[in-house]
Amino acid sequence: MQGIEAIRDLVEERISELDFSREPKNLYNPISYTLNNKGKRIRPILTLLACNMFSENIENAMKPAIGLEVFHNFTLLHDDIMDDAPVRRGKPTVHMKWNANTAILSGDTMMVEAYKLIAEAPDYCLREVLKLFSELSIGVCEGQMYDMEFEDRTSVTVNEYLKMIELKTSVLIAGALKMGAIIGKANKNDAENLYKFGINLGLAFQLLDDWLDVYSDPKVFGKKTGGDIVANKKTFMLITALEKAEGNKAIELNNWLEINEFEETDKVTAVKNIYNELNIGEITMNKAKEYSTKAFEYLNKIEIEDHKKLELKTLGESLLKRIK
Amino acid sequence: MQGIEAIRDLVEERISELDFSREPKNLYNPISYTLNNKGKRIRPILTLLACNMFSENIENAMKPAIGLEVFHNFTLLHDDIMDDAPVRRGKPTVHMKWNANTAILSGDTMMVEAYKLIAEAPDYCLREVLKLFSELSIGVCEGQMYDMEFEDRTSVTVNEYLKMIELKTSVLIAGALKMGAIIGKANKNDAENLYKFGINLGLAFQLLDDWLDVYSDPKVFGKKTGGDIVANKKTFMLITALEKAEGNKAIELNNWLEINEFEETDKVTAVKNIYNELNIGEITMNKAKEYSTKAFEYLNKIEIEDHKKLELKTLGESLLKRIK
Repeated sequence: MQGIEAIRDLVEERISELDFSREPKNLYNPISYTLNNKGKRIRPILTLLACNMFSENIENAMKPAIGLEVFHNFTLLHDDIMDDAPVRRGKPTVHMKWNANTAILSGDTMMVEAYKLIAEAPDYCLREVLKLFSELSIGVCEGQMYDMEFEDRTSVTVNEYLKMIELKTSVLIAGALKMGAIIGKANKNDAENLYKFGINLGLAFQLLDDWLDVYSDPKVFGKKTGGDIVANKKTFMLITALEKAEGNKAIELNNWLEINEFEETDKVTAVKNIYNELNIGEITMNKAKEYSTKAFEYLNKIEIEDHKKLELKTLGESLLKRIK
Repeated sequence: MQGIEAIRDLVEERISELDFSREPKNLYNPISYTLNNKGKRIRPILTLLACNMFSENIENAMKPAIGLEVFHNFTLLHDDIMDDAPVRRGKPTVHMKWNANTAILSGDTMMVEAYKLIAEAPDYCLREVLKLFSELSIGVCEGQMYDMEFEDRTSVTVNEYLKMIELKTSVLIAGALKMGAIIGKANKNDAENLYKFGINLGLAFQLLDDWLDVYSDPKVFGKKTGGDIVANKKTFMLITALEKAEGNKAIELNNWLEINEFEETDKVTAVKNIYNELNIGEITMNKAKEYSTKAFEYLNKIEIEDHKKLELKTLGESLLKRIK
């Protein structure tokens, strides 16, 4: 079994070896720029850890794993155009640094590059890996569409929200794990349990992220808190608050959603007070805990020795360490 | 051997059987809308004709062929955003009828759907077909980037223009043919000659299109002539004229390119006069003829009985029938 840090270094090395120093520069420079913008590389690491649970040969999974990271970065690139986001990981987004057309086209090219890497899966699982990758890519697109639709809708239910984040976030996490399992020649049951581990891990992670936006220490979280509140983002917190608020509290909350001119700190404080009164923080944390528990139950079900699950368990726990 | 019309009907039928009546509707409706906007279906027809030259079993090539049509329509969808084109085949473009974000995301989904179909190639050629498809997809993206870059540049050489249209148009035509040949189990030489037939056919077709925009009978061509002249589009005609024009003619041509306010018919008449004086129509037609001749030379080199080449020869000739 390889440790997470060794695998992360390997992933970083392989990504840096991808050569996009080609013509036309306006097409390929944004791709290098995006991929060099060091992310956490969670998805390829999950693929390689999952593969390593069932096989010593993780090299078989390396190119598909890198393909998932290229795909993930492609989705960020196109999402940033759609959300008109100016900054990503502290640097200008591609459509700001270049322009929207370049961002569309470099993104398209990245998707093809992702498929090229995925298509380097070994013969014994090529068709299955391709099918899985296409399915999860479609899921991510559907999730992004629901996310955009929800922004324009007045009401969204908790279940609709959960379905959306499952598609937009969990499916790729779960798919990364399942891809590793398939390449590592896991049996169907184990691969499926790993997939379900990923779905629940992703949901817990997203709910935690919603909670952190309101309740975390900005110094630890690394970004300003309250951003979702300022933007009226329909997170689990806001949707639950809208369901629970009654009388004057409902009126007050809706007022804050409707007014266009306000001091950001006033709005964040006021909405946070409503959340506190309605116990939204605890409800959200409990829901995250529920998914987290479920995730590790699925991990337990996998029929291999416990020590082989250790790295993945540790990674999962570190992703969810703020859940209490 | 199956006739072109029978194959076209089969292609149309299979495209109509693709089921995009899924949720979220905002993601899938634009895909149905795009694919129902009947095009000429040239690419899948080429794949099936090419396959049929070497094999009786064209069903093997059907899904990949349809995948190429889905891919082609995806490129139109994204190109229309980038070019801000309001109309495609007489109907509002997706980004006009819905919005740009929907067009980006539905396009992304179409690319995945294209890969799903391509990945249904038979086992004996799956890897080769995928590799070819990724290569030609990258080529199309590169071609589109050059096309956008050229619009912002003051000077473009004839060779740069030919390279651009080779990538943007010919590579997909040639790749469609080669894919059919591979699935039909053609030998490497024949597949390569078919590819080169496609490259030259595509170049001849595009040069003819440039010529038709200026010199065709609008009633026959189906669209207003002179559109490229009005838009200062850097076609083979304009680039050649800029290379050849001297003295007052050069000044006059550049004036027409620079002024923003003009009567469209005045500009078209004036630029057309310059083209006539510089013999640009004949030069363009000769170049198209050169590529057309080359194309059919490559078709001749393919080592199968002549009657098996007949359908493809007829289709090629019909595409280029205005060349004289």
